[in-house]
Amino acid sequence: MGFISNIDNELLSKVATNDGHGENSAYFDGWKAYEIDPFHPTQNSDGVIQMGLAENQLCFDLIQEWVVNNPKASICTGEGSEDFKDIAIYQDYHGLPEFRIAVARFMEKVRGDRIRIEAERIVMSGGATGAHELLAFCLADPGEAFLVPTPYYPGFDRDLRWRTGVQLFPVVCDSSNDFKVTRTALETAYQKAQESKITIKGLLLNNPSNPLGTILDKETLKDTVRFINEKNIHLVCDEIYAATIFNKPDFISISEVIMEEDVECDRDLIHIVYSLSKDLGFPGFRVGIIYSYNNVVTNCARKMSSFGLVSTQTQFLISNMLSDEKFITKFITKSSGRLRKRHYMFIKGLEQVGINTLKSNAGLFIWMDLRRLLKEPTFESELQLWRIIINEVKLNISPGCSFHCSEPGWFRVCFANMDDETMRIALRRINNFVIQRKGIEGGVKKLQCRRSKLEISLSFRKLDDFMNSPHSPMSSPLVQART
Amino acid sequence: MGFISNIDNELLSKVATNDGHGENSAYFDGWKAYEIDPFHPTQNSDGVIQMGLAENQLCFDLIQEWVVNNPKASICTGEGSEDFKDIAIYQDYHGLPEFRIAVARFMEKVRGDRIRIEAERIVMSGGATGAHELLAFCLADPGEAFLVPTPYYPGFDRDLRWRTGVQLFPVVCDSSNDFKVTRTALETAYQKAQESKITIKGLLLNNPSNPLGTILDKETLKDTVRFINEKNIHLVCDEIYAATIFNKPDFISISEVIMEEDVECDRDLIHIVYSLSKDLGFPGFRVGIIYSYNNVVTNCARKMSSFGLVSTQTQFLISNMLSDEKFITKFITKSSGRLRKRHYMFIKGLEQVGINTLKSNAGLFIWMDLRRLLKEPTFESELQLWRIIINEVKLNISPGCSFHCSEPGWFRVCFANMDDETMRIALRRINNFVIQRKGIEGGVKKLQCRRSKLEISLSFRKLDDFMNSPHSPMSSPLVQART
Repeated sequence: MGFISNIDNELLSKVATNDGHGENSAYFDGWKAYEIDPFHPTQNSDGVIQMGLAENQLCFDLIQEWVVNNPKASICTGEGSEDFKDIAIYQDYHGLPEFRIAVARFMEKVRGDRIRIEAERIVMSGGATGAHELLAFCLADPGEAFLVPTPYYPGFDRDLRWRTGVQLFPVVCDSSNDFKVTRTALETAYQKAQESKITIKGLLLNNPSNPLGTILDKETLKDTVRFINEKNIHLVCDEIYAATIFNKPDFISISEVIMEEDVECDRDLIHIVYSLSKDLGFPGFRVGIIYSYNNVVTNCARKMSSFGLVSTQTQFLISNMLSDEKFITKFITKSSGRLRKRHYMFIKGLEQVGINTLKSNAGLFIWMDLRRLLKEPTFESELQLWRIIINEVKLNISPGCSFHCSEPGWFRVCFANMDDETMRIALRRINNFVIQRKGIEGGVKKLQCRRSKLEISLSFRKLDDFMNSPHSPMSSPLVQART
Repeated sequence: MGFISNIDNELLSKVATNDGHGENSAYFDGWKAYEIDPFHPTQNSDGVIQMGLAENQLCFDLIQEWVVNNPKASICTGEGSEDFKDIAIYQDYHGLPEFRIAVARFMEKVRGDRIRIEAERIVMSGGATGAHELLAFCLADPGEAFLVPTPYYPGFDRDLRWRTGVQLFPVVCDSSNDFKVTRTALETAYQKAQESKITIKGLLLNNPSNPLGTILDKETLKDTVRFINEKNIHLVCDEIYAATIFNKPDFISISEVIMEEDVECDRDLIHIVYSLSKDLGFPGFRVGIIYSYNNVVTNCARKMSSFGLVSTQTQFLISNMLSDEKFITKFITKSSGRLRKRHYMFIKGLEQVGINTLKSNAGLFIWMDLRRLLKEPTFESELQLWRIIINEVKLNISPGCSFHCSEPGWFRVCFANMDDETMRIALRRINNFVIQRKGIEGGVKKLQCRRSKLEISLSFRKLDDFMNSPHSPMSSPLVQART
C-alpha cells in the first residue's frame, strides 16, 4: 500500500528521504514476493511459502487454552471488565507494577533461574525494534558507532541507525570457525574503526544469534565482557531468543557472566534487550524490554519509553499469563520440545538432498549452506540463486548478503512459522529443485550428491511416511501457516 | 522510581544527558506532588487532588457495558480466542485492515461526517506522543523549527524536540483577544525566526486547544492555511480533542477547511495527529494516528511506525468497538453531554468565588484566570501562588508558565478525571482558599470579590445542595477518581 508522489524533497527531512529504513534489501523483497503470491494449501498451492519470517507458531494451542481458562486475565471479559477503566487510563511509563514483576520473573526463568532480574529496572518499549533504537539514542551521538558481529539481523540497520544517525561497524566472522565471535575479530574491527576515525561506543551482541541459531559459550562471553570493559564501551545484548533453546548446551545470559569471579566488569556498560515476540510468539503485541544495569540509562530509557509504551490492555494480559508459573514452566518445556522436533525434521529433510546447515540449538531458523549451488563464489551468484528460489522454487528464504554475511552462499530459513503439511511441501520443493539443479549442472563437481533422482525420491517418500506416522515427532498439534 | 548514579556522562549520548525530556518543569512537578500524597476519599482525604491530568473518565460505564455485551471483540474470551493466534502474530505495520477502516470512519464521524478520511492513509503510532515525534522526524532536520502558538501543551517540548533535535518557535498569543491565533502573530513569529536565522519548516496547531479548551473558527483556519501555503511550510494539526466538544460552535477540522473553494492549498503540506486517548479515554492503550495528505510522508511514517505500533490485541478491540456505529453515536453524544454538565458545574463553582475562566467549549480542562491573586504580575509570583495551591490547598493544577503562556496568572485545571464527590471537595478547597486569601490580602484591590465570607459560604452550601439533588446534571454515573 505505497503512495506515489513527486514531492520536492527539500520540504522533508533527510531521515524521510534517505533509505535508512533499509527496506530496499533482498530480505524485505522476499517478503513482498510472498505477499503478492502467498501459498495456501487449497486456494493457492503453487504460491510462495513464507520461510523468511522468524515467527514461533508452534504453541498457540497452549496459549489459547490458557486464555479460555483464565477469563479474569483480560479486561474484556465479564469477569475482568471491572478492571477496564483502571487499565485503560493507566499511562504511567513505569508500567503496571504486576507487569514489571511478571516480566522480571519470566526473564529469570528463561535464564535458568541462575540470575536475579530487578522488576524496578524493567523498561518497556515498542518491541525489540523500539528497544534497540532507544538504547542507541541513549548511548551514542550521531556519527558514533556500534560494533556488530556478522552475519546479523537486517533490522538492526533500521533500528539502531535510521533516526539516530548512529552507525554499525561490522565484526567480520566466517564459517572457518562456525561464525564464532573471537577476540581477534573484535580487536581487528575496533582497530579498523579507529583508523577510519569512527568512535566506537559499544558492541551489539545477539545471543542466541539471528540468523545463525547458535548461542555464545561462556568463554566467548567472558572474553567479550573483558574486551568492552577494557575499551570502556557499552555492551548491548539482544537476548530475544532466550527461550528458543531446543538442545543442549543451555543458554547463558550476559547477566550470568558478569557475576563470574574472573570477569572484571563495569556494570554501567551492560544493557539487555528483550521481547516477548519470539519466546512467546506474540510479535503483534509489541512487548519490548530494556534492562540496563546503568542507573542513568534506566532513568532516561524510561522517559524515552513514552514514545512506544506497551498497551496496558496487553500489559494486563501478559502479567496475568506470565505470573502463572505452572503454565509458564509447561509452556517453555513444550515449546522447546516442539522446536527440537521441528528442527530435527527440517535438517533431516535437507540432509536427504545433501544440504548442510550450521549446527545450531536455538532460534526459529537454520543457517543453510548452499555454497555448492552457487555458480561462482560471489554475492551476485548468491542473489541469482535466491531469485530462482523465490520465483521458481517459490520459497521465501533470506540470502546471507542481507545479513551482511562475509561469505556468499548462506541462507536463513525459518521453520517455526508453518504447520507440518506446509513444511512437507517446502521440503519437497527443495528436493525437486536440487534434483533439477543436479540435472542441469551435472558437471558441477562441488555438488557431491551421490544418490540418483530415484534414490532421493525414495528417501523423501520415507520422510513423508515418517512425518505422517503417529510416532512422528511432527504429530504435535501445530498451528496452521499464516496465509 | 529513579535510580541515582554518578556515571561519567561522556559514556552516554547528548540526548541522554541533556534535559530534553522536559520533566524538570512545574507541570510534571505537580504530578510528583500528587503521586507522593494522592487524595483518597476515605484513606487520605487531605491528600492532593489530581487536576493536572487531562483524562476523560466520565463514560467508562458505557464502555464497560459494551465490552461485556461484545465478547467476540476480544481475543481473550471464549468467543474470541479462536482469533488469538492470527492477532498475536500480526505485526504488519499497515495495521489490521479492519482497524484502519474503523478508525477512519470514527475520525469522519467526530468531524461531523463532512469530510472523507481514507483508511489507506491511516498510520499508527505510540499515542500522539509517538505521532508528533514521528512527524517531526519526517518533516524537519535537527536545528530546524516549528512555529507553535502559545500557550501550548508542555509535552510538545519533549515530543517534537528531544530526540529529533528540532526546535519549537513560539507564536505569542495573549488574553487581549482570548488567545486567538492571528495572522499578525504568525507573521511576527516567522519574521523573528528568520532574523534569528532559524529555518521554519512548519506550524503546529492544536485544535481544540490544550490548555485553552477553545476551538479555531473557520476564518482563523483559512487564514492559517493561506499563511503556511504562502510560506511553503508544513501544517501539523493536532486534533486529539476533536470529540470533546460539549457546546456550540461545532468543531471544524483542517480536513474540512482545505476543501473550501476560497482556500488555495498544497495538500502535501497538511498532516493531522490524532489519538484515542482523549476522545475515548484510553490513554493506556497507546493508539496514536498520523494522517498525512502527503504520499511520501505517509509511506515514510508507516515505515517509522515500526518503532511504536499499536498492540494488535488493542487494534482488534478498537476495530470492533469503533465499527459498532450505533454504540459510537451514543457514546459521542453521551460523552459530550456529560462533559458539558461537568464543565458547567465547575465554572459555576468557580464563579461563586469570583474566579473567571476563559470561555471554552471543548477539552477536559479550563483555563483559569488567577491574575488577580498574584502579588505581582510575574511568573515568579505565578509559581509562588502555584506552590501554595499544590502544598496548602492540595490541588495539582498546572501553571501557565509550563505551557509557555506569555502572561502570568493563568492555570490549567482538569475537570473530567474525577467523580462528583472529589470535584465537590476540590471546589470547596478553592472556596476556602479564596476566602483565606481575601482575609490575608484584604487590601489587595485587584481582588474584586464583594461578598463576605458568610455569603460565599452560603452560596457554596447552595451549590452542594444543587449538586446533590436528583435533578442535578452531576448525577450522571461518573467513575471514581484514580487514587
